[in-house]
Formats: sequence, C-alpha cells, structure tokens
Amino acid sequence: MKTIYITRRETFNAAHKLWREDWSEEKNWEVFGKCSNKNWHGHNFSIYVTVKGVPNENTGFVINLKELSQILKDEVVEALDHKNLNLDVPFLAGMLASTENMAIQIWERIKEPIAIAGGELVKIKLVETENNYVEYYGGKEPF
Amino acid sequence: MKTIYITRRETFNAAHKLWREDWSEEKNWEVFGKCSNKNWHGHNFSIYVTVKGVPNENTGFVINLKELSQILKDEVVEALDHKNLNLDVPFLAGMLASTENMAIQIWERIKEPIAIAGGELVKIKLVETENNYVEYYGGKEPF
Amino acid sequence: MKTIYITRRETFNAAHKLWREDWSEEKNWEVFGKCSNKNWHGHNFSIYVTVKGVPNENTGFVINLKELSQILKDEVVEALDHKNLNLDVPFLAGMLASTENMAIQIWERIKEPIAIAGGELVKIKLVETENNYVEYYGGKEPF
Amino acid sequence: MKTIYITRRETFNAAHKLWREDWSEEKNWEVFGKCSNKNWHGHNFSIYVTVKGVPNENTGFVINLKELSQILKDEVVEALDHKNLNLDVPFLAGMLASTENMAIQIWERIKEPIAIAGGELVKIKLVETENNYVEYYGGKEPF
Amino acid sequence: MKTIYITRRETFNAAHKLWREDWSEEKNWEVFGKCSNKNWHGHNFSIYVTVKGVPNENTGFVINLKELSQILKDEVVEALDHKNLNLDVPFLAGMLASTENMAIQIWERIKEPIAIAGGELVKIKLVETENNYVEYYGGKEPF
Amino acid sequence: MKTIYITRRETFNAAHKLWREDWSEEKNWEVFGKCSNKNWHGHNFSIYVTVKGVPNENTGFVINLKELSQILKDEVVEALDHKNLNLDVPFLAGMLASTENMAIQIWERIKEPIAIAGGELVKIKLVETENNYVEYYGGKEPF
Repeated sequence: MKTIYITRRETFNAAHKLWREDWSEEKNWEVFGKCSNKNWHGHNFSIYVTVKGVPNENTGFVINLKELSQILKDEVVEALDHKNLNLDVPFLAGMLASTENMAIQIWERIKEPIAIAGGELVKIKLVETENNYVEYYGGKEPF
Repeated sequence: MKTIYITRRETFNAAHKLWREDWSEEKNWEVFGKCSNKNWHGHNFSIYVTVKGVPNENTGFVINLKELSQILKDEVVEALDHKNLNLDVPFLAGMLASTENMAIQIWERIKEPIAIAGGELVKIKLVETENNYVEYYGGKEPF
Repeated sequence: MKTIYITRRETFNAAHKLWREDWSEEKNWEVFGKCSNKNWHGHNFSIYVTVKGVPNENTGFVINLKELSQILKDEVVEALDHKNLNLDVPFLAGMLASTENMAIQIWERIKEPIAIAGGELVKIKLVETENNYVEYYGGKEPF
Repeated sequence: MKTIYITRRETFNAAHKLWREDWSEEKNWEVFGKCSNKNWHGHNFSIYVTVKGVPNENTGFVINLKELSQILKDEVVEALDHKNLNLDVPFLAGMLASTENMAIQIWERIKEPIAIAGGELVKIKLVETENNYVEYYGGKEPF
Repeated sequence: MKTIYITRRETFNAAHKLWREDWSEEKNWEVFGKCSNKNWHGHNFSIYVTVKGVPNENTGFVINLKELSQILKDEVVEALDHKNLNLDVPFLAGMLASTENMAIQIWERIKEPIAIAGGELVKIKLVETENNYVEYYGGKEPF
Repeated sequence: MKTIYITRRETFNAAHKLWREDWSEEKNWEVFGKCSNKNWHGHNFSIYVTVKGVPNENTGFVINLKELSQILKDEVVEALDHKNLNLDVPFLAGMLASTENMAIQIWERIKEPIAIAGGELVKIKLVETENNYVEYYGGKEPF
C-alpha cells in the first residue's frame, strides 16, 4: 500500500483590503500598512490543493485530476475569480480577508467534495505574491 | 559604438475594473466580461522598462540601475502599488484602466526622468497575468 | 495614434519525433539525436501570440483578449493538445514536426481569424523547453 | 546533530498515454479523457529528489550533489529522457504510466544507489505540468 | 484553534567558494569540483522562511509580514547581500560556506527575533540555483 | 523563404565586482554601490542566444540546437561558469565586468562559430537577476 500525494494548481485574480471597520484609519494603517487602502488593491492568487491516497489499481490514480480540477473550479475559482474578497464572497463575509483566513475557509468548502470524489484533502497552499504564501493542513502540525 | 538595451523589473499589486459609466451593466458585461465586476478585482503586475544606450566608458553602464530603479519606484510603484487604478491614480483618471492605457500613460510619466538620467526609454512591458501582457515602444512599430 | 502590442499565452502538451522516413535509423540519429526516438517523446509547449494595433477608443483594447484566447483555443489548443504532432495534426502532415515548422504553420492558421477579430498578428513565440524556443514574425526580419 | 534536507532537480521530456488494453476506447476516454489518445502525448517532466542527513564535518555536505546528480542522470534521465514511458522503459512495463506510478518506481530505482552514496532518500516530487505534480515519501505519511 | 504556516521570501546575491585551507588544491578539487575555484564564484540566493501559528483574532495574521520581512532584511539580507560568504560574514566564519551550513546558521540568527515578534520559526528553505536547495526544520525530522 | 528566430538558453554561476582601481573606495561606492564590495559578490546568470535563418528543407532546422548548445558550452559556459569574471576570464580582462560589457564580449566570441555552423547570431540576452538583464543585437538598433 503506497500512499502518495497529488497536487493540482488553479489560479484566480481578486481584489481585497485588510481593514477593520471598528478601527480608525490610523489604526488600520498602523497594523495593515498599504494593505489597508480603503479603495482596495488586488493580486493574482495561485492555489495548490494536495490530496493523499493510494493509487487505484484500475487507474493508477490517487484521484482523477479532472474531477479534482472541476471541484476547485466550482468551489474556489467560480467563487473568487475576478471578485472582491471582502464584498462578493459569502463564505468570507464578516472576517478579515487575509490569506490565512482564505485558506482556512477554502479548506472547509472543498474537504467534503474531495472526500466524495474518493480523496483525502491534506494541504492547501495559497500564494498571494512571489514573496509570500500560506500553507494549511486542516489545523494539523506536520512540523 | 555599441548600442545595448538594459531592462529593469519592478512589481506592484493593484485593483481595477474595466467599466464604462455610460454603458449599461449588460453592455459592460458583454464587452468586458468578468473584468467588469463593479466591486473590482486585482492583479500582481510586473513592469519591465527597457533603456537603450552605449555603455559609458567610465562605468560600463548604459544607465545606472540604481537610478533607473529609483525613478520607477518614485513614478510607478509609489503611484500604483496597493492602489485602485480607477480611483487612486490621477494620471489614469477618466480613462479605461486597461493594460494598454496603463503602459501608454506610464511611458509619458517616466520618459523625461529617464532622459535626465542619461538614458533613452525605448520599451515598456507590462505583465498582468502569466497569460497576458502588453508591450509599448512609444508608438513606434519595430515589427 | 499609439500602436501597442498585446500578447496572449496558451499551453498544450504533445508528443512528436524528428524523423525522416527516407533516412536510415543511423542518419536520423546522427542529425536528430535523442529527438529521433521512433517511439516518440513529448513536451509541454507554451505559445505566446502577439497582436499589434491601436487601443480602441471605446474599450481601451487592441483586441479583446477573450476573443483572442478563443481563437487560440479553437485553432491551436484543440488541434494540438494531447496529440501526436506527426500523426494527429492535418496541418503538420508530411513535414518535420520541428518547432520552426510548427510556428510557421500555426501562423497561417490563426492570421485570418485574428484579422477578422480586428487585430494584426505580428509574432508567434513557441516555447518547447525552458532551454529553447522559436520566434516567427511571418517571415519579416525585425532584427 | 543537525538533520537537514537537500534537493536536486533534473528534467526529462517523454511521451506517454493513459490507456488500458483491456478496456474499450470509450471506457478509456471516459476515465482518462484526452490523456488516452492512442497516438500518445507528452510532457516536460521535472523531478526533485530530496535526501536527508547531517552535514558531514569534513565537507559541510549532507550528500555530494555531484554524486546525487550523477545517480539521477544514470538511473532516471538516461532511462526516461526522450523516451516513450509505455514502450521504452522496462521498469514501467505493464503498468499505467501515471505520475503516481512513475514516482513509486523511480523511488525503488534510486533508493539503494543514494544509500550507497551515504544519503537517505526521503522524498520524490515529480512535476508533470505547471498545474499538477505528485509527491512520494516512500509510502510514509508525514501529513 | 487553526494552526497555519506562513512563508516570506527574500533574495540576496553573494560570492563564495567551497574550500578547505587544510586540504591541497587537488583534494579540494576532488571533493568540491568547480565550487572550489580559489577566485570564488557566486549565486542569486532565495530564502523562504516559514512561521507557524494561529491567526490572531484581531488581525487575521499568524505574524505581521511587514515585521517578518524587516527581521529578514536586518538579519539575513543586510548580512549576506553582495557579500563574500567566506570573508565578510562573521556568523559564517571558520566554516564551509555550504548551503547546509548557511541554513543552519541563519536559523540560529532569526529564531529569537521571530519569537519576539510572536511567531514560531519552523522551516528555512535556501535555494542556491534552479537545480538545488536545502530545507532545515531546526534539526527536527518531519519526514 | 520563411525567416525564423531560434533561441537557446544556457546558465552559469559566477563572482564579480564593479570596481575601478583608479578610483577611491568612496568613489567606487558612490557609483557602483553594493556591487563594489572589494571581496566580490555573485550571480546565477542565464544567457539566451538567438540565431536567425530559414529552416533547412532537409531538417526543418534553422540551426541544429545540439551544435548551438555545444558552441555555447565551449565558448561561454566553460569560460565563465564557477569563475571570477574579473580575475579568471581572459576576454573580460581589463574592463568593467558589467552585464553590458559581458554581453558585448560574448557576442564577439560566439559570432564566428555560429556562422560556421550555418547560423546568423542576431541577439544575446544576459539575465543577471530576476530584476535586470541586458539585450545586445551586435550594435544594431531594432527599436
């Protein structure tokens, strides 16, 4: 039984700001800096979703990448691409649109569909710029 | 006399939308598609600025990259990074915030400072996503 | 009148071999080396297609990237993705499947549809590996 | 004792198809989609091989990268580069040429030579396209 | 309590050689090959620093990336950028300037400042070329 | 007659400094900044060499990439890889080791061998970091 990990990348482009309504503009600037611009800024995001499993004897696949890609298109890209993360995305409403929170909420959204497709979601990597990204293992701490 | 071309890259992250106030929402959608989302979307932009010249005998440089980088930081990154291209940028006001228009306006903004620093601006490449970019030669048509 | 250049990237994965039926195996090996493996090899190709024009006053666009992308999907990706370039592609039949020949044939295939969409095709860049690519300007020689 | 991980990348270009002889063409298409094209397709593969160890006091190395690179050239690149993964590779014969299976078989092939060179193979990452890759830890499940 | 991992990249360009004064030139060549050139060679290094934590309820952040970036600029880039790793860097003095040793020494240097900023350093990835990098988890062995 | 352009990339890692012996340390710092560090720094360089021609009817090639790669290995990589550009490279002796000068000297070195192999050298692109590169057309000015 050979456990293996397979990863699919999808991309989306979105606007957001880091801003708390209950803070003054000065306080927002102090904590969030340029990211607090009231008029928004944006990014090209890349998301890498990793599924763990044993290759199926009939197909050689841990999960069919066509199915995994479709889940990500339906649940992530459709919801986030060319959107405002603070205004347009119900599952991010009422929280700070940080990459940390985005990764956690995306996890909750895709875990079940991936399980139904026969895979086990074990990692999300969300890349915001060439200089920063977050990784989320469902709360687990592999290191 | 050996003419050579030197290029410097800078990056900025910004929000924008492709939207005409004098068009209906349907018309905007028909022409601009997802890019017309009223609540904005955004990108990680990369700009490559090319300067032409003959290496200076004393320095081996066409232009000092420290100076070129400083011009780009002052005139481009400071003006566009973490900004809303439709709302926050005086030199883009009143026009569609397409990559084409951005490149043309940036050209007008940096041509003179680069000339003062001893270089001749000959090309701007503005990359919006891994799948699309524009190149502008000041209106010239090398091919 | 500000002429500007806009480029769209698409990708496709294909098999091919460099092989002449009228040459011996030894001669094929001597000229084409590893690329002459009778059982094929393959690549992830990227194609960058550049269109020249003046931004439309109504849209700010040289060409609508949705339309350009659709042309490339219909005429290039549909024809070449997950295909054998020697066996499955009518417009490459009977010629060596070199990147040079591919670029020239793709040019002939997309020039007219791009013109109908209002653009002028001026360059194709076809990337075969991180170490080699060809560029074709329709036979023109900008340098 | 400071355990550290060192990784070497090598590349190879190969053709393959996902196809079961005991299935109909329709069934192959249903499961494997475009990847089932009978005439093959191909990819530029990148393989990242990770070795764990404590830096040698005399050399500062976990493993000499020249040796690791040579092992990968001998055992992986020589066997797979410019080859047909279904037809030309004895150690992949009789199985589906999925990236999952490739990673598992490559592991078996290089584990011993790396051990002889003084390293412990702990991970293989096999990248098929910019959008998908597999990771194999010898069957272990770090997360 | 959702543990998440956030990573920041910084870059620096430096010269070094792999060379032991107590070995002959022949012995140095035998072990270190081209890297033993007495007159030095160099690289563009990228360092990826990963911090683990639970997003702060007030900010949505594991650690403020502005602070993390400043620590890396102060402790790593300032010390290593445009430097000779064998001659100019006190914390690398007297040891082989291998990527393994660099990663270990950088860990010791940034662990405390990151802790003071409220984060837990859990991984350093140091990339020397597109073909090799090391990863260090403070001596831990996640796999 | 279809003129086409083909490009081959090679890489090398080298140390250098920007430094004039006839200038004071202060003057060197003022002009060259960090690049004037007396103890050297270094880079991973990439060189892209472009050859122009008409595909050969027998081979489909403008130039055989195996031959072009061999010329670059013999004349560029062998001379520059893991070298000190100021001390170890006869064809750069006595001049500032700027990317501009490097590109011009490499041109002189490879033009003739490429002509003998049946190609016409038309462009060298020399990339020093992800943020800067030079392009040289043999002194011609395509734009």
